[in-house]
Amino acid sequence: MELSGFAKAQFLSVNMAFGFAVTAGAYVCAGVSGAHLNPAVSLSMFLLQKMSGRLMLVYWLAQFLGCFVGASLVFALYFDALHVYGGGNWTVYGPQATAGIFASYPSEHLSVINGLSDQVIATAALMICILAIIDEDNNAAPRGLQPFIIGLIVLLVGLSMGFNCGYPINPARDLAPRIFTGIAGWGLEVFRAGDNWWWVPVLGPMIGGVIGTFIYEMLVGIHHSVEQKNEEDGEEHHPPEYELVQSMA
Amino acid sequence: MELSGFAKAQFLSVNMAFGFAVTAGAYVCAGVSGAHLNPAVSLSMFLLQKMSGRLMLVYWLAQFLGCFVGASLVFALYFDALHVYGGGNWTVYGPQATAGIFASYPSEHLSVINGLSDQVIATAALMICILAIIDEDNNAAPRGLQPFIIGLIVLLVGLSMGFNCGYPINPARDLAPRIFTGIAGWGLEVFRAGDNWWWVPVLGPMIGGVIGTFIYEMLVGIHHSVEQKNEEDGEEHHPPEYELVQSMA
Amino acid sequence: MELSGFAKAQFLSVNMAFGFAVTAGAYVCAGVSGAHLNPAVSLSMFLLQKMSGRLMLVYWLAQFLGCFVGASLVFALYFDALHVYGGGNWTVYGPQATAGIFASYPSEHLSVINGLSDQVIATAALMICILAIIDEDNNAAPRGLQPFIIGLIVLLVGLSMGFNCGYPINPARDLAPRIFTGIAGWGLEVFRAGDNWWWVPVLGPMIGGVIGTFIYEMLVGIHHSVEQKNEEDGEEHHPPEYELVQSMA
Amino acid sequence: MELSGFAKAQFLSVNMAFGFAVTAGAYVCAGVSGAHLNPAVSLSMFLLQKMSGRLMLVYWLAQFLGCFVGASLVFALYFDALHVYGGGNWTVYGPQATAGIFASYPSEHLSVINGLSDQVIATAALMICILAIIDEDNNAAPRGLQPFIIGLIVLLVGLSMGFNCGYPINPARDLAPRIFTGIAGWGLEVFRAGDNWWWVPVLGPMIGGVIGTFIYEMLVGIHHSVEQKNEEDGEEHHPPEYELVQSMA
Repeated sequence: MELSGFAKAQFLSVNMAFGFAVTAGAYVCAGVSGAHLNPAVSLSMFLLQKMSGRLMLVYWLAQFLGCFVGASLVFALYFDALHVYGGGNWTVYGPQATAGIFASYPSEHLSVINGLSDQVIATAALMICILAIIDEDNNAAPRGLQPFIIGLIVLLVGLSMGFNCGYPINPARDLAPRIFTGIAGWGLEVFRAGDNWWWVPVLGPMIGGVIGTFIYEMLVGIHHSVEQKNEEDGEEHHPPEYELVQSMA
Repeated sequence: MELSGFAKAQFLSVNMAFGFAVTAGAYVCAGVSGAHLNPAVSLSMFLLQKMSGRLMLVYWLAQFLGCFVGASLVFALYFDALHVYGGGNWTVYGPQATAGIFASYPSEHLSVINGLSDQVIATAALMICILAIIDEDNNAAPRGLQPFIIGLIVLLVGLSMGFNCGYPINPARDLAPRIFTGIAGWGLEVFRAGDNWWWVPVLGPMIGGVIGTFIYEMLVGIHHSVEQKNEEDGEEHHPPEYELVQSMA
Repeated sequence: MELSGFAKAQFLSVNMAFGFAVTAGAYVCAGVSGAHLNPAVSLSMFLLQKMSGRLMLVYWLAQFLGCFVGASLVFALYFDALHVYGGGNWTVYGPQATAGIFASYPSEHLSVINGLSDQVIATAALMICILAIIDEDNNAAPRGLQPFIIGLIVLLVGLSMGFNCGYPINPARDLAPRIFTGIAGWGLEVFRAGDNWWWVPVLGPMIGGVIGTFIYEMLVGIHHSVEQKNEEDGEEHHPPEYELVQSMA
Repeated sequence: MELSGFAKAQFLSVNMAFGFAVTAGAYVCAGVSGAHLNPAVSLSMFLLQKMSGRLMLVYWLAQFLGCFVGASLVFALYFDALHVYGGGNWTVYGPQATAGIFASYPSEHLSVINGLSDQVIATAALMICILAIIDEDNNAAPRGLQPFIIGLIVLLVGLSMGFNCGYPINPARDLAPRIFTGIAGWGLEVFRAGDNWWWVPVLGPMIGGVIGTFIYEMLVGIHHSVEQKNEEDGEEHHPPEYELVQSMA
């Protein structure tokens, strides 16, 4: 669920709102779906054989629909403000542009290749942290506080890696509101803008999520398997991860 | 208890103060009253059959009186500052206006209908999060940290949905200080301002709280009941919620 | 221990530094002294018969000395900065004033009587929150996180009640650095400034702490005793508080 | 792992990013290496006989390499931004200077001797807090939340002691990115700048870490030993620390 409206605020406030919106969403959904809010995270869990491919597709659809509904709620909540601020126009560019409230657009300095590497690195970092925070064999955060700590990490990613294009790091959170704005009056410019930027925050997080998962399993997860081999000899708690590492090596 | 004085500060600071004031209030009252600080929350708990209608009315009165006392403490704490800042006048409008320190007034761009939808959406979102955070069948926060996490959610609501009218989201917190200012020297203008705005942050949160409760029960609470039916067959831990959902469907 | 240096920063940053400095100090001292950093808190604990009068005086001395050492560390850490910023002068007033880095001085608008009520209200609010956070019969924070939550409350007090005079709320934290600056070159003006302001942040917190303790015991603590009477009949865990309330009523 | 990119942001945001980057790194590494991210901390653990000298050297190498890789990721992530901002030049001085993004440089007002004392005091304060937060005989934070609390302390150090030179407080975090920038195009000026400043944030934290460890053991750790002597008579849980204190006294 995309609850965070985000208009005309300063950098830190917006990042805090984003981070803790993830916290809020995770608390709400944790018991039912395991707090899958991000298609890139769901893809990782599928690769780690923690969910089936079919369930992943269902989650992807739900994530996309949730973000679409969230965007329409933001639209409803700030309808008057958007109307006044934009002078009645819905524009992607210029001083009264409001499309950036819903989806990401690259800074002027950013090339597409650097934008893609930005999204890959940021999502990989996020994924490594999430996997660590929920890893009971590592120093996992207490279960009832994992949404808070993960929200904090999203805040961190925003503060440290949000200068290029506002850290979408989530294909559903970026594409669904973009489509909403395309329908709601901003037009097809939302896809053409930034040298057809729209696909970067969709593909980048997917690649980054997979890379982050791979790095975590190689650098940290593999220790768990080895330790278990040494200490318990043959009784492995995490065969799926271990096999993944094997098959990916 | 409304401990937070809130003058001449920047957006983030004020929101943090508000959020953690809720944290403070919740720690103080949790053991005695279950931390009911908001009439909209009490109304939800009544609808979920977790408190009687009579107790709810007692709580409403206490919440109202507490906010009235809180407003008078803020008045005492910042008496000199208010006096100097307002040039000896207590005004609702203009550059020396100080009434907005005590109660909410809509931004210029905001229509009453958008203001009402703002309050309904914001309080519904708050209510969904609160119900999730305290839901032991979901991923509840540790009991001793629930006031902190709920304060964080209030901060989030303020950061993301506070641009229209400062997110009252609490009828007592808005109406009681408004009446205080009406008595203390600002006059009846506090009710007439903003196209008779005063009733919006009273009614909106009540509607939003009910809607949020309904959404949470439909989307999340219902899973608990179904799971319990499937797994434990007939032994239901939360009959009140389940019945509510039934009777509201 | 007063670890926080505090120069030329914005309002929120300084308040966060103050709040979490309390967190840091509390983690360091919790095991040895029960994290008594504030003479007003020690006075409350004495009134609640949780510590002897003699131990309280020892703590007062230690708190005072700790703050004096802290002030000298800040002086050492920022010696060059203070020298350059003040142009070689140590002044209490004017655009190059640096005395306010060490101790509190009232805003221009603040009268002594409003300053005193500010300190009484702020310290009473702080005390009520601290007593709630550590009250196992209420909804206490987890023991290992109490320093964090108390630091958050200090942050809250600063954000909401710091506009008048910078919320000293701690006699040792204000008086000891003030004496240090008096010796280190700022001279006796540190005591004369603000209409002999120096005694307000010494006496105010003491009065506020006692009032806060009394309010908490009357509004919350008394419920514990009554509940225990009703439920366990005669077996009371907190006779000291109960007797205090009796003797003060 | 040095995940935090840090460009053109405001003071508080950067400090929050730094602090929670430590949180992120600690969550990732806690299970494998005990979250050693700082050579000064590893040195302390060696002095407390909690790790061998050989393992310390291995950790130092890993910390250095990790920071080097981190610097190169920041370089990749913000390559376009650095290029545009610096006008194609990589400069250490002047309005387009970008070297300060990677390593610390002293403020103009700062002498080398004050810079060294800054680093010693800041790292000593950090070390005292870290030792308290993980000290089970004191009021340790819950294990799964220690990375969060330690990140908060790093934030505190930054907010309160970051005005002189940006609180490197970690030899690997400062030297490795400095060498990276020396190679990547900024040249040897990165070592000559600030009166050959580079060695200060390498040696200072090492000295400060040792001093902080010594202070903590003298002021707090010694109480544990004495208490254990008195209460359990002869059965000491922490002989290494006690002996260290003995041998250092």
